[in-house]
Amino acid sequence: MDINNKIADLLYKIKEKNPLVHHITNYVTANDCANITLAIGASPVMADDVNEVWDMVSKASSLVINMGTISSIRAEAMIKAGKRANELDIPIILDPVGIGATPFRTEKVQILISELKLAAIRGNLSEIKKLYGMKSQTKGVDCTDSMSSNVGELTEEKEIAKDLANRLNTVVAITGSVDIVTDGKTLYCIENGHKIMSKVTGTGCMCTSLIGACSGAGHDNLLAALSGVASMGIAGEIGYERLNKDYEGTGSLKIRILDAIYNLSKEDITKRAKISED
Amino acid sequence: MDINNKIADLLYKIKEKNPLVHHITNYVTANDCANITLAIGASPVMADDVNEVWDMVSKASSLVINMGTISSIRAEAMIKAGKRANELDIPIILDPVGIGATPFRTEKVQILISELKLAAIRGNLSEIKKLYGMKSQTKGVDCTDSMSSNVGELTEEKEIAKDLANRLNTVVAITGSVDIVTDGKTLYCIENGHKIMSKVTGTGCMCTSLIGACSGAGHDNLLAALSGVASMGIAGEIGYERLNKDYEGTGSLKIRILDAIYNLSKEDITKRAKISED
Amino acid sequence: MDINNKIADLLYKIKEKNPLVHHITNYVTANDCANITLAIGASPVMADDVNEVWDMVSKASSLVINMGTISSIRAEAMIKAGKRANELDIPIILDPVGIGATPFRTEKVQILISELKLAAIRGNLSEIKKLYGMKSQTKGVDCTDSMSSNVGELTEEKEIAKDLANRLNTVVAITGSVDIVTDGKTLYCIENGHKIMSKVTGTGCMCTSLIGACSGAGHDNLLAALSGVASMGIAGEIGYERLNKDYEGTGSLKIRILDAIYNLSKEDITKRAKISED
Repeated sequence: MDINNKIADLLYKIKEKNPLVHHITNYVTANDCANITLAIGASPVMADDVNEVWDMVSKASSLVINMGTISSIRAEAMIKAGKRANELDIPIILDPVGIGATPFRTEKVQILISELKLAAIRGNLSEIKKLYGMKSQTKGVDCTDSMSSNVGELTEEKEIAKDLANRLNTVVAITGSVDIVTDGKTLYCIENGHKIMSKVTGTGCMCTSLIGACSGAGHDNLLAALSGVASMGIAGEIGYERLNKDYEGTGSLKIRILDAIYNLSKEDITKRAKISED
Repeated sequence: MDINNKIADLLYKIKEKNPLVHHITNYVTANDCANITLAIGASPVMADDVNEVWDMVSKASSLVINMGTISSIRAEAMIKAGKRANELDIPIILDPVGIGATPFRTEKVQILISELKLAAIRGNLSEIKKLYGMKSQTKGVDCTDSMSSNVGELTEEKEIAKDLANRLNTVVAITGSVDIVTDGKTLYCIENGHKIMSKVTGTGCMCTSLIGACSGAGHDNLLAALSGVASMGIAGEIGYERLNKDYEGTGSLKIRILDAIYNLSKEDITKRAKISED
Repeated sequence: MDINNKIADLLYKIKEKNPLVHHITNYVTANDCANITLAIGASPVMADDVNEVWDMVSKASSLVINMGTISSIRAEAMIKAGKRANELDIPIILDPVGIGATPFRTEKVQILISELKLAAIRGNLSEIKKLYGMKSQTKGVDCTDSMSSNVGELTEEKEIAKDLANRLNTVVAITGSVDIVTDGKTLYCIENGHKIMSKVTGTGCMCTSLIGACSGAGHDNLLAALSGVASMGIAGEIGYERLNKDYEGTGSLKIRILDAIYNLSKEDITKRAKISED
């Protein structure tokens, strides 16, 4: 079965299994993350009090930890939930939002990475470079490292992703003009999406939530990350195509992305996904 | 005057009186709750610092306490605000989001119920069963107890709602495929709404905010809960009808529900409300 | 160059410079504030942990502090970030949401004002009156002081704005049926916008974020406040015009405002801005 069909199958499985995706996340995009999780067929739960995360994650199919608006107290809850998730073999997906922007944030991410076994990490190029230990400029939560849109030219980016995946024994997803997803051995490039998506807050967070939904429905972390990333890219394209360019913009785009995920069909995946194995 | 006209009258009164609805709520759906409160003609205020809730609620016409993303500190603020509301005879509406999902959450709800006199409680069937003391499976914040869509078959659900209302001396609203609203004596079933509403996060929270707006405009807790629940169901139907099913989904649905509440007319209520007294 | 052209130029400069706007803000409207900041061409970052705000603001082009859902801990972070911003000459824009509603909130705003040098303050008439020291009724976070829509009649409001601007050595913006923006010497009245905007939560917060984006791109605090206020008013008008009044309402309006800001052209400003210098 080719990779597009495997993705389509996994999306079907989400609707069938309806996995519970426990999020410990930020208050800026929590609503969008909950809605995209529902739209793809999973169930979100947002709970971050350190006194209930151990119990909550025990019922979940996956755990999404997102560093946006991170606080000391929420980081503590992430560790506690993460350790329980590891005990129960529940996949953890990390979104290291804004790592590198401040020492505080970088330190919190480093603790999470050293204490927890992660199923996947999704970030933009600046964030992943910073995680890798390279000097990189993170400007707030946006990506400032430019990325080629030519798959053939991304040699360094692919090496970083593979090395980091091998070092942390996880799946690494870099999203940008081309998306890269790898478990350290197999590497996929995805050429879906549209650059306007970076002008809507939370498209990265929502992509991570989709990976959470996919991880909760299957057992293949690489396929889950690939499916989440490809779904988000395709939904972004469909959303953008649907805009009346004369007067609609990023407000409407977010709504159309949620609509596209809700309506995402097998055909959308098989006809639109532009995935190449490296 | 029949019940539909009473509801239409109350909605008119909200716009006239513009009651202030103090919310102590979660960060996932706070924006939607504020917007639906404004859309129906009331004014929302979200304030949860334990040092200001006593003063804030003193100015309010009603208090909504919603357990989503509950924390120890926010629970403390709920108690403080709630006690002041009780002193001033300001109606309190409780949304026990996810009760039963964790012992922490269940305990917090139990404290609220034992310390405060509530005007109304709104939850899904799983949550209300848990409150009632029955073994029930709450999966995160979603309802897992299936409910018949046949009013005649809901004997057990009606008994639970009535018993709980009598025991706590409050109004109980169970929302689901059929909604049940009762003060322990009179019981209404409402057959509005559409199942797609469960795929938008916060439709339950928004319904509770609508009850808050209704409670702030009148003095009849049963009518207020019935009006909030019926308005939400009718807005869900209108919103769903307006969707272009070819490509719109849950993203657009939320926007259309807010639009429908904003435009809700006397005719929408009198022609569409499917309310039966048991 | 006339004032409309200066505004259009500044908006162009935002897209060119892409300033980072650090927000310490509330969880009700944070998503909308981030999205409108992106829509106008700047980059938002929301970070409020007291341990990282010093570092985060050091990278920013402006700092927005918004008192919605204020807590003791967030107020502490505001002071810390604000002092650093003052050291680095990074403009601070204050939104005193709900000042006067509770003693707690009033006290927190007073501390901010006495400790920090502000570039601009934006509020509704009730909030600005309260800041000025006048008895004013703030009902929750809404404005209850009525304002004439006749520019010629606003003598008292103009005096308050000018006096407060002079006393605090800042720019004061009062938004309402007519908007007033002054640095204590020059005073502008803006007659854009539509009253339906008050029925969408966060239109005030979003306006403040726009001022933050404008302040981050230029060095003229008066022009920045004027540009933010005028942009929001014009976007509100465009958004309202685009509504299908038969069935669309405040849900759609918010989306259309974001769309309008994203698409805001030089012509929108030069043709629509109704600005008069007093």
